[in-house]
Amino acid sequence: MSLTSPALRLRGRRVVLASASPRRKEILGRAGVAFEVIPPRFPETLSKAAWPRPQDYARETATGKAREVAARVAQEDPETATVVIGADTVVAVDGRILEKPRDREDALGMLRSLSGKQHSVITGVAIVTWGGLGGPAQEVRAFHEETRVTFSPLSEELIREYADGGEGWDKAGAYAIQGRGAMLVQGVAGDALNAAGFPLNRFCRELARALPVPAGSEEVTSSTTGVDSADRK
Amino acid sequence: MSLTSPALRLRGRRVVLASASPRRKEILGRAGVAFEVIPPRFPETLSKAAWPRPQDYARETATGKAREVAARVAQEDPETATVVIGADTVVAVDGRILEKPRDREDALGMLRSLSGKQHSVITGVAIVTWGGLGGPAQEVRAFHEETRVTFSPLSEELIREYADGGEGWDKAGAYAIQGRGAMLVQGVAGDALNAAGFPLNRFCRELARALPVPAGSEEVTSSTTGVDSADRK
Repeated sequence: MSLTSPALRLRGRRVVLASASPRRKEILGRAGVAFEVIPPRFPETLSKAAWPRPQDYARETATGKAREVAARVAQEDPETATVVIGADTVVAVDGRILEKPRDREDALGMLRSLSGKQHSVITGVAIVTWGGLGGPAQEVRAFHEETRVTFSPLSEELIREYADGGEGWDKAGAYAIQGRGAMLVQGVAGDALNAAGFPLNRFCRELARALPVPAGSEEVTSSTTGVDSADRK
Repeated sequence: MSLTSPALRLRGRRVVLASASPRRKEILGRAGVAFEVIPPRFPETLSKAAWPRPQDYARETATGKAREVAARVAQEDPETATVVIGADTVVAVDGRILEKPRDREDALGMLRSLSGKQHSVITGVAIVTWGGLGGPAQEVRAFHEETRVTFSPLSEELIREYADGGEGWDKAGAYAIQGRGAMLVQGVAGDALNAAGFPLNRFCRELARALPVPAGSEEVTSSTTGVDSADRK
């Protein structure tokens, strides 16, 4: 299936990003889509033991975030065709999930554990849809995308210089690939934006599956959304 | 060899980026290095026939840019320890080099030729050094880094929407991976920053080879550069 325009597919729908991450906002913004941001109140405290694979943990946490925001939005407005997007990113190395570092020592330890090795950055995404001709029933589409990231072997001096720069303190794995942290990365395999927090390309593909019919062609009588679907072929 | 801090290695040296690209400036800036920008006057008109491999073409063009700027800087200041950095990025698909598109039709054609396929983004980099204890003789270290980028199959509608957005008009291959163009990319293999125009990680590694002795330890008597090398181990 060809990649199609997410802006056209989402036209006429209310779009909500259920994430407080400025980086995710920036990435989703690249799709040329108008959306609002509602930070989730869902606590990121799912038991990792309950989801032994980090992939499942990320997907479940993303689903929890998207559902929590969707419940609040739908209570106020169950009719409007709406799409709520949740996401959660984890770093996994040697089968262990790295979260945000607790302190400087924790950050140094994480960077040392990533030095000279490949690790996985996994973003789970959930798309909750309702309203429009589909009625008020919510549907959820959840998936995860995994990107493998290989760090150069790092000198202890560089590890300390990078950690003390501070940009990784609030990031899973104690580094930011979208910032100075990119210097540490010898290569990636997979979607590089996914490693930064949101798999934009995969999202566009999954969106096409979640919303097989563009909003415009659901309501051909509406003058605001009335782009004939034949025009977009 | 471990990756070491480029900021420490370049300390006490004048650093010049021989590129007008705002994106390269942004990427090199992530290394935490103070540098000035001097756009090269070297014409990007090397015969592609003379360098049948795009890798060689990119490296030679980068070397031409760095040498041209180095000649101007060294004429004014042959003594100061200086590092001049040149770079050139090309996109190659099916053995053909894609340059900046001439017009809208050319951009549409390039995007169609990339759709659903893997291509290479190759950045050539040249590091010209002179001065300090090494004296006025210039040394050149040139290399290239290649990143493979896979586009999703794109609908004709998305190709037109993306091209008309305009961000790819001044980019080799008619797209910008650092912008909305990332949406088109299913995955990369290699250094993602290299695909955006500058291979920061590889640069740091080559820099350590070009400047095996940090400037500070060349001149331990200087109070401005006097960081004892033992402190950095």
